[in-house]
Amino acid sequence: MPLLIKNGEIITADTRYQADILIQDETITQIGLDLEMDDEDLEVIDATGKYIFPGFIDPHVHIYLPFMGTFARDTHTTGSQAALIGGTTTFIEMCCPNRNDDHLEAYNLWKSRAEGHSACDFTFHMGISKFDDTIEQQLKEIVEDGISSFKVFLSYKNFFGVEDGELYQVLTLAKKLGVIVTAHCENAELVSQLQQKLLSEGKTGPEYHEKSRPVQVEAEGTNRFATFVEMTGATGYIVHLSCEAALNRAMAAKSKGVPLYIESVIPHFLLDKTFAERADFEGAKYVMSPPLREKSNQKALWAALEQGFIDTVGTDHCPFDIEQKDMGRGDFTKIPNGIPAIEDRVNLLYTYGVSRGNLDIHRFVDAASTRAAKLFGLFPRKGTIAVGSDADLVIYDPQYRGTISVKTQTVNNNYNGFEGWEIDGKPETVTVRGQIAVKDGKFVGDPARGQFLKRKPSHF
Amino acid sequence: MPLLIKNGEIITADTRYQADILIQDETITQIGLDLEMDDEDLEVIDATGKYIFPGFIDPHVHIYLPFMGTFARDTHTTGSQAALIGGTTTFIEMCCPNRNDDHLEAYNLWKSRAEGHSACDFTFHMGISKFDDTIEQQLKEIVEDGISSFKVFLSYKNFFGVEDGELYQVLTLAKKLGVIVTAHCENAELVSQLQQKLLSEGKTGPEYHEKSRPVQVEAEGTNRFATFVEMTGATGYIVHLSCEAALNRAMAAKSKGVPLYIESVIPHFLLDKTFAERADFEGAKYVMSPPLREKSNQKALWAALEQGFIDTVGTDHCPFDIEQKDMGRGDFTKIPNGIPAIEDRVNLLYTYGVSRGNLDIHRFVDAASTRAAKLFGLFPRKGTIAVGSDADLVIYDPQYRGTISVKTQTVNNNYNGFEGWEIDGKPETVTVRGQIAVKDGKFVGDPARGQFLKRKPSHF
Amino acid sequence: MPLLIKNGEIITADTRYQADILIQDETITQIGLDLEMDDEDLEVIDATGKYIFPGFIDPHVHIYLPFMGTFARDTHTTGSQAALIGGTTTFIEMCCPNRNDDHLEAYNLWKSRAEGHSACDFTFHMGISKFDDTIEQQLKEIVEDGISSFKVFLSYKNFFGVEDGELYQVLTLAKKLGVIVTAHCENAELVSQLQQKLLSEGKTGPEYHEKSRPVQVEAEGTNRFATFVEMTGATGYIVHLSCEAALNRAMAAKSKGVPLYIESVIPHFLLDKTFAERADFEGAKYVMSPPLREKSNQKALWAALEQGFIDTVGTDHCPFDIEQKDMGRGDFTKIPNGIPAIEDRVNLLYTYGVSRGNLDIHRFVDAASTRAAKLFGLFPRKGTIAVGSDADLVIYDPQYRGTISVKTQTVNNNYNGFEGWEIDGKPETVTVRGQIAVKDGKFVGDPARGQFLKRKPSHF
Amino acid sequence: MPLLIKNGEIITADTRYQADILIQDETITQIGLDLEMDDEDLEVIDATGKYIFPGFIDPHVHIYLPFMGTFARDTHTTGSQAALIGGTTTFIEMCCPNRNDDHLEAYNLWKSRAEGHSACDFTFHMGISKFDDTIEQQLKEIVEDGISSFKVFLSYKNFFGVEDGELYQVLTLAKKLGVIVTAHCENAELVSQLQQKLLSEGKTGPEYHEKSRPVQVEAEGTNRFATFVEMTGATGYIVHLSCEAALNRAMAAKSKGVPLYIESVIPHFLLDKTFAERADFEGAKYVMSPPLREKSNQKALWAALEQGFIDTVGTDHCPFDIEQKDMGRGDFTKIPNGIPAIEDRVNLLYTYGVSRGNLDIHRFVDAASTRAAKLFGLFPRKGTIAVGSDADLVIYDPQYRGTISVKTQTVNNNYNGFEGWEIDGKPETVTVRGQIAVKDGKFVGDPARGQFLKRKPSHF
Ligand SMILES: [Zn+2]
Ligand SMILES: [Zn+2]
Ligand SMILES: [Zn+2]
Ligand SMILES: [Zn+2]
Ligand SMILES: [Zn+2]
Ligand SMILES: [Zn+2]
Ligand SMILES: [Zn+2]
Ligand SMILES: [Zn+2]
Repeated sequence: MPLLIKNGEIITADTRYQADILIQDETITQIGLDLEMDDEDLEVIDATGKYIFPGFIDPHVHIYLPFMGTFARDTHTTGSQAALIGGTTTFIEMCCPNRNDDHLEAYNLWKSRAEGHSACDFTFHMGISKFDDTIEQQLKEIVEDGISSFKVFLSYKNFFGVEDGELYQVLTLAKKLGVIVTAHCENAELVSQLQQKLLSEGKTGPEYHEKSRPVQVEAEGTNRFATFVEMTGATGYIVHLSCEAALNRAMAAKSKGVPLYIESVIPHFLLDKTFAERADFEGAKYVMSPPLREKSNQKALWAALEQGFIDTVGTDHCPFDIEQKDMGRGDFTKIPNGIPAIEDRVNLLYTYGVSRGNLDIHRFVDAASTRAAKLFGLFPRKGTIAVGSDADLVIYDPQYRGTISVKTQTVNNNYNGFEGWEIDGKPETVTVRGQIAVKDGKFVGDPARGQFLKRKPSHF
Repeated sequence: MPLLIKNGEIITADTRYQADILIQDETITQIGLDLEMDDEDLEVIDATGKYIFPGFIDPHVHIYLPFMGTFARDTHTTGSQAALIGGTTTFIEMCCPNRNDDHLEAYNLWKSRAEGHSACDFTFHMGISKFDDTIEQQLKEIVEDGISSFKVFLSYKNFFGVEDGELYQVLTLAKKLGVIVTAHCENAELVSQLQQKLLSEGKTGPEYHEKSRPVQVEAEGTNRFATFVEMTGATGYIVHLSCEAALNRAMAAKSKGVPLYIESVIPHFLLDKTFAERADFEGAKYVMSPPLREKSNQKALWAALEQGFIDTVGTDHCPFDIEQKDMGRGDFTKIPNGIPAIEDRVNLLYTYGVSRGNLDIHRFVDAASTRAAKLFGLFPRKGTIAVGSDADLVIYDPQYRGTISVKTQTVNNNYNGFEGWEIDGKPETVTVRGQIAVKDGKFVGDPARGQFLKRKPSHF
Repeated sequence: MPLLIKNGEIITADTRYQADILIQDETITQIGLDLEMDDEDLEVIDATGKYIFPGFIDPHVHIYLPFMGTFARDTHTTGSQAALIGGTTTFIEMCCPNRNDDHLEAYNLWKSRAEGHSACDFTFHMGISKFDDTIEQQLKEIVEDGISSFKVFLSYKNFFGVEDGELYQVLTLAKKLGVIVTAHCENAELVSQLQQKLLSEGKTGPEYHEKSRPVQVEAEGTNRFATFVEMTGATGYIVHLSCEAALNRAMAAKSKGVPLYIESVIPHFLLDKTFAERADFEGAKYVMSPPLREKSNQKALWAALEQGFIDTVGTDHCPFDIEQKDMGRGDFTKIPNGIPAIEDRVNLLYTYGVSRGNLDIHRFVDAASTRAAKLFGLFPRKGTIAVGSDADLVIYDPQYRGTISVKTQTVNNNYNGFEGWEIDGKPETVTVRGQIAVKDGKFVGDPARGQFLKRKPSHF
Repeated sequence: MPLLIKNGEIITADTRYQADILIQDETITQIGLDLEMDDEDLEVIDATGKYIFPGFIDPHVHIYLPFMGTFARDTHTTGSQAALIGGTTTFIEMCCPNRNDDHLEAYNLWKSRAEGHSACDFTFHMGISKFDDTIEQQLKEIVEDGISSFKVFLSYKNFFGVEDGELYQVLTLAKKLGVIVTAHCENAELVSQLQQKLLSEGKTGPEYHEKSRPVQVEAEGTNRFATFVEMTGATGYIVHLSCEAALNRAMAAKSKGVPLYIESVIPHFLLDKTFAERADFEGAKYVMSPPLREKSNQKALWAALEQGFIDTVGTDHCPFDIEQKDMGRGDFTKIPNGIPAIEDRVNLLYTYGVSRGNLDIHRFVDAASTRAAKLFGLFPRKGTIAVGSDADLVIYDPQYRGTISVKTQTVNNNYNGFEGWEIDGKPETVTVRGQIAVKDGKFVGDPARGQFLKRKPSHF
């Protein structure tokens, strides 16, 4: 049934204007002044005083994730509904086989977990933790199936991680297939050696997590990845860049014209390493990798985000309960990593970026939606408000004032790293391909509406 | 009378899709699929197979310009029609009083020259070559009148140029008024001393122009301007950045979050200093400032443009005939500066950028139109294709193949610096606020349709 | 009468070994094992357990200095004896005419003040605050007279400061004469504008001194000076570089092969801006320019010193009594600048550098003596221990432990900015051209032994 | 028998003066004016008009080297005599066990090859190509035996090369033992993958050698090594740095205070990649790794050398005859690497550095002798002219003019990469610990005089 949204202020990565939007079936069919339609089924939403954003895209989440003998807590049901409530209408999940897993089986497993259980649309970055002829063949099949981005880890040696030779081959294949390669950039050996050193010195608490993977470790990984991208001609994307040292290495590559893109995640913009140093093991809630950094890095990240040097803002969403974090008491290397934020990313970025004067509103939309759509083969279907695009829309109330709390969240996690933080706006209504999924901030949609998004490679 | 453009491929800085565009009066009123309108006056254009771009904006032109006792050759009549034929529907002219001119009178003079004589819309960067209480008062009036950008020269001492103290005061005032300050960044004294040195050594030909203002001279000016922008909190915009050395200084400021924007101009992307070294004084055609550089700088400029580090591409259009260039025979410092390009900028950037694989098509639109609109207070009226925006549209034929020549140009100049260069596309139809100005590549519009665009300051 | 120093450990910028040193007349005539001499006048010093350093050189002091209507407190008598007690056997004084002074008269005045009153050898950097034909002629005479280094200020506009055009001409002349140009690098206008801004906001205390000349101001001056040095082919020397931002600009020039040298002064290695923020106007004791900085800069300075990127360590010695500092109550711009250190420089650098493990002992000698000798045309007469060199020697006791205090100092100043600081070594005996000037840490020499050192230009 | 060198001009890294030098037994016992000695055995050399340099040190040579199934052509007999004729009185040879060799056996083998066969003194950098408990134990023994420097390869994977984990452990051990670690910094995998790619494309000639290890490959290795040095606290030394890209990475570490030193080798200062592109396989003579580079890098190397950013200049001497180079016809990866220069290094550096105005004479001595002595635990025994130091002296004739040729060389190699190059000076007399080894440019010494130099670790 057709939907007409009237009187809202349309704000995209590019533009801002007042107009009505007509949605038929799943897509936008008209944008204009004083639109009308003669259809008795027509539903009309009055968006006066509201912003209308394109549905936001989280380019980096973990939903299904076996890790260290346990599982991240979200299901696709909880994760996708949390996403929608927070304004995210598409997520890209990391499909993470380890070195011993059959990669095609892993892909099918991850996909089967999501299909039929997600309320919003989704796709995957295909993780690669090894490279041989079999895997090459499987990757081609997976790309055929609609995946146009890979993921590699430079760290987590012998498990998720690839070695230099494999990295070269993954990038060479990606170049041939037109696939973009996303990478977790930390030096595997340095992390492992520093962890052993710290533990052997009795430094076992979460406050030592950062010391086991200092900025130099990330800068080295970033520089190495950038070099391999340059040498292979492939297109690269650095996930969760956390610090100025790594940023400088990535920028040096960008300045030479290397097609290298940068994602940072919301925790690194707002939290610093003192959170992970909180007493009584509370710091464990704030353990993720790359770790929370010295506060001074945040200034560099915000500046780079505003300038567009940082392309996208994701979450690295990965919820583990306090009890799971407890596995790492006495050994910080055993603390499951993650500071969940799929539900709060958009509101936090809007609040501490746009509302508090640190981020242009168009750059906000660009970083949280449009640029991911463009990089990952979803544009203009997703990431914008235009005739022909999917009607994934967020009617956002900039007047809303509230507070983040575990008590009111939908994410399946028994703490929230941003507990008590103020937010200055909130999605009121959210649509998924023309259907209302969130109304007055509550999920009211079809829990299984989400589709797997087939994507075409474009980075040749 | 209403205009309906059907079946074109709309391409903006942000997005790309197939849709019809309905124009009523001067603005876009609907974008949609299969639009119809029941109006006998309706004019319909079939844009099948064509791109529809937002009208392009040239952020840096000189039309009326008394210089060295002569005048640049274009009138607003010739310049604006040349602009339109080349797809540029708005230009921002430099209003250039010298140190002895009354600034308000100059402003009124420049404006009177344009008003009633321009076929396309226009505005001015208000040049400031001195600072005192009178001028401060005049500048406030000028801003009131609709000007939201200033222009300063760090070079051309005692004529156009400002000294450090004046620069500080201009920027301080601009910060207070929310005005952006554009700057020509070369060290005045170094230029002047090097010129004298070269002339005294008998080095008088156009090939010495570059040696009199080498990259160090521009890098110093750029660094100084960036420092003053940072210290005053104002917003800066570097005009015609030409080389990697200056780019590095500007990028260092950007990376710190300084609101500093970069324009490069089309000659610096395509021409190098060997052009100015051509025998028989032909080099004089290629004398502009900053000068054409070592070819190696072009790689850095293209990379920075693709990445968005360079924000805009203008022309520094400034036509002098060969006979005028001749004034500088025997003394390169007397060659009137300029490599005209108002008519060819868009086609050249499309051809050697987009068509030849060096530039993303959205970044092309952004750099040649949208970002200038945003920086200079014209957005979303100009710079995009959206409901409510001015119907300045370029229906572009990407199949066209042709060649640039002085013989076929509209610019009033008896040579073309790009003579014989191939172009891979061309505007077929161009509208100015809904009225057709160019048809089949010929000017068919109202020679006086152009309006002075009142702009509001936004850089507070 | 001949002097034989036995059993000491000779330590130069280059080498370290045990040997005896024979001095006849004013110079070293032999270095060898088990030296003997059959001369009844022979004086023998046993230096067992002591280091023997070449006499230290302070490349940047102010002794005679009319400033802001008052005078720096030292005479050449007090200053030179303080220097010797601290191990400094040669100083280079800034001869500072202002823009209205006759430069040759100023030179003669400064020289007459020193001659006959200094216990140690001395020379001058000839300050230039204006440039015209007369001054050019005078400078040639001054160079003839034995001066091979100039000094310019980029700040202190209209008083000490030179403008860009004058700077170019000074450097051009210096290049021709083979003279090195030392420069105080801060942007004159920024300082002046920021001072006015702060005062107008009621920010009048010494804690605002740093805010009136932040690191950007020094980085800009440094970059400008480096550019002018590069463009003229002259040799430059940055005095009292204080921060990482300026260091980066200087290093960029060095890396291109520009002959640009760097001096930092002892206060910037050890004191930070919190000293100038001390309550009850005590901060005024710590007002100098460039100002004391954020502590984080010290790390960069020490690293650069160890690497030899910073060439020399001076003092910018300039003593004003507390009562004189009081002139600036209510207006920090009126506080006479200076943190005196001529007496303590060597001990502080030895203690917090060498003794505490932050500086190689050879680099210490190099930075505090040898490199200044080489840059300023005093080598190998000064700056080393070699046959034929002047017998300016410091027999240093590395076992000494003591404390700096105004109570025990010889400098004519009623406070010491390093009051209470520990020192880990001290000159026991100091010779000036073979004559003992300091014995057991006390001045015992001829108060008028010091000679004006005629120097020859070498930087062609 | 004692030796007295009269009237020479002593030039060290630090100083320059006229004096006589008395040598007794093996060391310098006196330096002074008009030295005399009453000993009938006294030999007197008149060095009027000559320079006296400390014996030069080549910090990077290969003499005994099994490589690709063949052997480098020099024996210690030929290599050491060639060294002495060229003014090099000490060399440090790479002891290069591969991954399958017993490291202690290798050390003993290399040592036995040298002992009794070298005319000049020598020591080794102990190569490490694997790390385990056995090797750790062996390394401790080797350090006990007098070795204070290690060598690792980041390239040559699975043969000479170490992996990241091993690198970390080597550096950690080195830090504990106070040993400096020298490193060949190229990314192993990139080299190997690029080689395969080029060969598979039929690009098999020596001109493709550089393309298989472009500057990015070396910059990556350099950055990685610098990071590991920083993270372990060890002291590092980059061998044969060849390009500006790698230099920038090393300088970034130096600027942070990381104890990282840089060696470049003489071919990279003078030869560029066009030599390796010479027709008819002549390019093979110019194949070494890192490869000869774009000429533009030389400017950066010379500037960095003059500034002391590059610490030392070695050779990577490694002679293979033309017939051996022929092994790589049809496959450039099989060309034995090396451009021999042990005999010509000093003369080339003096000529194209000092004599042609590109290098200060003290920096020349420092880079070619003193700094290596200091870094590698040989100072002040070697590397300077001082009482107590070994009498390794080079009486150098700066008036000599000649030409390099294979016809007149002593190195055992049937070509010379510098054939026909002019030289502007030459060692006339060379002593090895007080004994004359070279007279009038001919070897006249004891072919077995050379001693193994026991060194003590100092980099704690
Ligand atoms: Zn990750
Ligand atoms: Zn992740
Ligand atoms: Zn200009
Ligand atoms: Zn212009
Ligand atoms: Zn000063
Ligand atoms: Zn001073
Ligand atoms: Zn090597
Ligand atoms: Zn080697």
